[in-house]
Amino acid sequence: MRGDGRLANQLRPVTITRNYIKHAEGSALIEVGDTRVLCTASVEEKVPPFLRGAGHGWITAEYSMLPRATEQRTQREATRGKLGGRTMEIQRLIGRSLRAILDLKDLGERTLWIDCDVIQADGGTRTAAITGAFIAVVDAVSALRRRGALQKLPIRDFLAATSVGIVEEQMLLDLRYKEDSVASVDMNVVMTGSGKLVEVQGTGESAVFSRDQLNELLDLAQLGIQGLIDVQRATLGDLAAGIGQKPL
Amino acid sequence: MRGDGRLANQLRPVTITRNYIKHAEGSALIEVGDTRVLCTASVEEKVPPFLRGAGHGWITAEYSMLPRATEQRTQREATRGKLGGRTMEIQRLIGRSLRAILDLKDLGERTLWIDCDVIQADGGTRTAAITGAFIAVVDAVSALRRRGALQKLPIRDFLAATSVGIVEEQMLLDLRYKEDSVASVDMNVVMTGSGKLVEVQGTGESAVFSRDQLNELLDLAQLGIQGLIDVQRATLGDLAAGIGQKPL
Amino acid sequence: MRGDGRLANQLRPVTITRNYIKHAEGSALIEVGDTRVLCTASVEEKVPPFLRGAGHGWITAEYSMLPRATEQRTQREATRGKLGGRTMEIQRLIGRSLRAILDLKDLGERTLWIDCDVIQADGGTRTAAITGAFIAVVDAVSALRRRGALQKLPIRDFLAATSVGIVEEQMLLDLRYKEDSVASVDMNVVMTGSGKLVEVQGTGESAVFSRDQLNELLDLAQLGIQGLIDVQRATLGDLAAGIGQKPL
Amino acid sequence: MRGDGRLANQLRPVTITRNYIKHAEGSALIEVGDTRVLCTASVEEKVPPFLRGAGHGWITAEYSMLPRATEQRTQREATRGKLGGRTMEIQRLIGRSLRAILDLKDLGERTLWIDCDVIQADGGTRTAAITGAFIAVVDAVSALRRRGALQKLPIRDFLAATSVGIVEEQMLLDLRYKEDSVASVDMNVVMTGSGKLVEVQGTGESAVFSRDQLNELLDLAQLGIQGLIDVQRATLGDLAAGIGQKPL
Amino acid sequence: MRGDGRLANQLRPVTITRNYIKHAEGSALIEVGDTRVLCTASVEEKVPPFLRGAGHGWITAEYSMLPRATEQRTQREATRGKLGGRTMEIQRLIGRSLRAILDLKDLGERTLWIDCDVIQADGGTRTAAITGAFIAVVDAVSALRRRGALQKLPIRDFLAATSVGIVEEQMLLDLRYKEDSVASVDMNVVMTGSGKLVEVQGTGESAVFSRDQLNELLDLAQLGIQGLIDVQRATLGDLAAGIGQKPL
Amino acid sequence: MRGDGRLANQLRPVTITRNYIKHAEGSALIEVGDTRVLCTASVEEKVPPFLRGAGHGWITAEYSMLPRATEQRTQREATRGKLGGRTMEIQRLIGRSLRAILDLKDLGERTLWIDCDVIQADGGTRTAAITGAFIAVVDAVSALRRRGALQKLPIRDFLAATSVGIVEEQMLLDLRYKEDSVASVDMNVVMTGSGKLVEVQGTGESAVFSRDQLNELLDLAQLGIQGLIDVQRATLGDLAAGIGQKPL
Repeated sequence: MRGDGRLANQLRPVTITRNYIKHAEGSALIEVGDTRVLCTASVEEKVPPFLRGAGHGWITAEYSMLPRATEQRTQREATRGKLGGRTMEIQRLIGRSLRAILDLKDLGERTLWIDCDVIQADGGTRTAAITGAFIAVVDAVSALRRRGALQKLPIRDFLAATSVGIVEEQMLLDLRYKEDSVASVDMNVVMTGSGKLVEVQGTGESAVFSRDQLNELLDLAQLGIQGLIDVQRATLGDLAAGIGQKPL
Repeated sequence: MRGDGRLANQLRPVTITRNYIKHAEGSALIEVGDTRVLCTASVEEKVPPFLRGAGHGWITAEYSMLPRATEQRTQREATRGKLGGRTMEIQRLIGRSLRAILDLKDLGERTLWIDCDVIQADGGTRTAAITGAFIAVVDAVSALRRRGALQKLPIRDFLAATSVGIVEEQMLLDLRYKEDSVASVDMNVVMTGSGKLVEVQGTGESAVFSRDQLNELLDLAQLGIQGLIDVQRATLGDLAAGIGQKPL
Repeated sequence: MRGDGRLANQLRPVTITRNYIKHAEGSALIEVGDTRVLCTASVEEKVPPFLRGAGHGWITAEYSMLPRATEQRTQREATRGKLGGRTMEIQRLIGRSLRAILDLKDLGERTLWIDCDVIQADGGTRTAAITGAFIAVVDAVSALRRRGALQKLPIRDFLAATSVGIVEEQMLLDLRYKEDSVASVDMNVVMTGSGKLVEVQGTGESAVFSRDQLNELLDLAQLGIQGLIDVQRATLGDLAAGIGQKPL
Repeated sequence: MRGDGRLANQLRPVTITRNYIKHAEGSALIEVGDTRVLCTASVEEKVPPFLRGAGHGWITAEYSMLPRATEQRTQREATRGKLGGRTMEIQRLIGRSLRAILDLKDLGERTLWIDCDVIQADGGTRTAAITGAFIAVVDAVSALRRRGALQKLPIRDFLAATSVGIVEEQMLLDLRYKEDSVASVDMNVVMTGSGKLVEVQGTGESAVFSRDQLNELLDLAQLGIQGLIDVQRATLGDLAAGIGQKPL
Repeated sequence: MRGDGRLANQLRPVTITRNYIKHAEGSALIEVGDTRVLCTASVEEKVPPFLRGAGHGWITAEYSMLPRATEQRTQREATRGKLGGRTMEIQRLIGRSLRAILDLKDLGERTLWIDCDVIQADGGTRTAAITGAFIAVVDAVSALRRRGALQKLPIRDFLAATSVGIVEEQMLLDLRYKEDSVASVDMNVVMTGSGKLVEVQGTGESAVFSRDQLNELLDLAQLGIQGLIDVQRATLGDLAAGIGQKPL
Repeated sequence: MRGDGRLANQLRPVTITRNYIKHAEGSALIEVGDTRVLCTASVEEKVPPFLRGAGHGWITAEYSMLPRATEQRTQREATRGKLGGRTMEIQRLIGRSLRAILDLKDLGERTLWIDCDVIQADGGTRTAAITGAFIAVVDAVSALRRRGALQKLPIRDFLAATSVGIVEEQMLLDLRYKEDSVASVDMNVVMTGSGKLVEVQGTGESAVFSRDQLNELLDLAQLGIQGLIDVQRATLGDLAAGIGQKPL
């Protein structure tokens, strides 16, 4: 049993509140335990210069933490005047993950701007951001379809992410900050609704791991991601049916 | 009657949720109509180098908007690599206003970091930030008192702020974005519970105004601020009694 | 009597030297006591991208202090790589103030760049900058009219600014640095020739002030600004007649 | 057969030139096909402030490409004034990978600065950087041991890295740029001499992959990394014996 | 005869106004024709960290142009957020030149900050800056001597600078902007009162020059610099006697 | 005799390796003693905006040092976020020097990007950069001529550079770092094959020098540059004949 009473293979409670922000085309507040990330998807009716005339769309993601999302206040990157390496790594990961299930051709010459802002952090903010951003994207493209700009949802499959790790020799699903900070191996996994991998990032923190351990961690991640996709499906209701109509 | 059914001298509905963030010593989510600002107060047990040994504390404020707080997505200042003029002006205003009612000597050699993050913007974000930050500060210093670090609350008086303006010749209280963007005169007023002024910033937007109009706007602001302080008082409950025990 | 022998309601000696810089379309060196600010107005025959085709002009202001304008040398913002909050606040104030009396429609699709560089600082640099920039603007637009680019001066009224404050319970006009640094209330006022307010910025420095005090300070400011406008009128000579032909 | 005549599971020719730079404590020029990376390890006899007195050392890595390492000239990050996300991601990866096999306690209160500069790029620059940096680190710590500053090499195991990917349904080892740019799945793998994983980063490029494909790619990577470690072992000669004397 | 009526070997009119700025320890406004540079020397009673305890002083120079010093307004470097190459080159030149005649040992553990701000530019701003900064330095160290902090002036010799160039095959002294901008060869020369060279920077602008031409230009520069030093000597009056008491 | 056994007027051994980088249109690794600089010339088929339609080309140079090119590791400018003054000065010098012998009209509307990256530094990196960049430029424009884009080589003359200086009263050619760091006078000279000067930068390092010493140093530099041009000529082989066909 873990510090918060969970089993090793158990997710924290997950809630997703759709349309949290009135201005955004799509938005979702995702809460995974005490981790809270506000995800918005904004539609811009043009693409970056290097894609003009290419006949397909673009998606780009930004990630940030409020200064007091963390136990100790962290300095704003705007105040420091530049983005840190961790932030850049995470926003690249979010963008890449969403590109795997979004049909940019069907999107047309548009850009989706994804913003993931961590309101409160307790481990797993990047994976919560991906899971929540998926919902915001679905709502943003649904709005486009509703007003006739798209024929069908350009979403090939569900997409969610979670973290797994090895803490004191034990394999754990969905690490809280306390667990994450002492994990010897830490892995972020992004998967689709059909169980395909989009991204695997496994890291030994001054430690190493075997192929067997890798596989065991992936089993655990897959279990958790299926649970997250169940929540997504319930959250989206009728909209869920429009996802993945076009096979991957 | 205004677009949202309010009278000229009526505030929008105001709610303040205390302790919104578990990590922060004090935090409040303030909602003024559709404007939502998350305010946190963080205690650091030291002062900036230029104040070391001076025997009193310091307070500093930062302000930011999430990119999709606004109708059109705005670029992150962290991405642009620098703070804009508007942001700097606002964070200086917030810090200065709080310094007027905070007894820095009683605070001791500590820094209060105030973070005001606009989650959703619909006019009046800077004044909502001041009104909400006041609550976060009270909670942060109360926590210090509870753990014996302070003898009494170093808060001299209540503090709240609102905007007033002239729109199509009419004097209005608590402008929404739609009103603010067409106002010919725009004024932010910060006041204490005893009706003293802390800050008056009146601006003709390509327009000018008379001394009489200034006075009428100030009357309106005073009315609104009294309403806001009533909300603060109700929100704080028992804590309210500890404010202003030391005369200003 | 004040440190420099002035009465509470007396301005420092003011001189304005027109055409101080040979390259600029308009320029003025304004001296208010020991405060010296060099103001230039540069005409650019285009507007920023967001105004193209809008049929009217633009005005933008920049403000800076030479490193040794101050008692202690201050680091250059160019060396630090970014503008400070105080600088941004001041340049926004200067631009906004001038926009109130400049008819941007009559200016045509042109930009006026205002540069205010403090050569020597002894309090009141921002208000001196506004008062001097007004002269530079008049000269720049007069040059446009002389070469037939404008039919009449697009200047609706005179414009000047001063600071007032409360020092040791006394209301003072036109604060020197020594007075300003100990003032409990500090107010910058921008007014037109016809006595209309353009900007009022009153600030309690860790202090508060009453409505009555605000009014008394405004009376004092109005007196001072009338004196400054007298100097402007004398400086401009014949040109003064062309100002405000079009009612505000 | 691949464009350059290799089999799917074949590495490009690899050469490592030790002591390429006379000033550095350790340095290696690694060439993997046409990819050439200059790796240096610099010893600094202190640790960053946050580690002072902690009794162990630190290692930090920087990565850069010369502007004309690439087919099209790329702008210098020094000229743009900031590091890109890709660069930050890579330098974090290199540092993390080396930390997994370096015994920071045995290193003592010292910092190893790793610099990996890509002289010519043809795919796999980050994995070549890790493989080459390992040699530079061994030489730098050997120099410390030779002058008596260390008792034994604080290196727990060999370390090398390669990339694998899926190109037109085929699994390939050690991708050239031409292959990498069209791969649907791209994976970087960092492994130790004893076959343990240090880092696995698998990414679907607008594509997804199955658990079976992941495993097949890992088999291929393991094969390649063994080949690279054979080259490292031959390059180091006698020094190789001192590695991993302390079990991981 | 040149455009402004001068002979080829004639300087423009030169005036130097000492103590132009009341706050600075030394200051001079130098006017060379229409070029006007404000030079200040500020004394700081400490040296940069890398010189602490070395028993001698330091001198460092900064150079800047006001935006409207030039015919076309130039953007502020503070606004662009970084110093340009030309600025850096010039401030390094000014600092280096002054170090050649300043006895840093005699100065003691102090820093002299030199600020050269171009108020109006018409060619030769960097050489005017050196010539004027020399006066500001003499005044700053004289102030130190007067208050007993120094025994004698730590100035080994006079120092002045001018530009020479080849315009349409003709050798010219002290180029105005109009001449400088069409010169095929452009040379800045810094010399001491005893005729020794401190710096020679000769540049062919898309052109080349012979050894003979170099020598002829140096003759011309020497003539001009002697004239400038005569002006310096007259400006300094009695102080001139204290310079170079210690042989170079 | 000098530390490395050279006579005062002797160059260090010089080798130039052409086509060191496969991607670049022209590239050369130049080694002058232990100084190694990698120079590339990249052709871009357009000119900067300010030259569009002007009917001639442009050349621009960048210079950088790898962090461990130096005895002590130097921080990357990309990490610091800005170019230092020394770097800017050097890249301006390289660009200007090459412009003197390149016929920009004959080049057509193209830009040559010159990159000089110091792999290992032991004095004279800027002059080695110029000497090596010349070869890279010749190769780049030769490639343009071979594919018919140019009729003849737009190179008016050979170009090389060296440093000379006064060390302990002795005039030395081609200073190593050890010599350079103790030189009282330091001069960089850029010359053409026909013995014309392109750039002379002589600097007293807290010292001064006479006209006679200047001339002696120039004699020494001329001798060295002739030696360097002999190496260039030998390196270029047949291509050498195409240089300077058009008289300067």
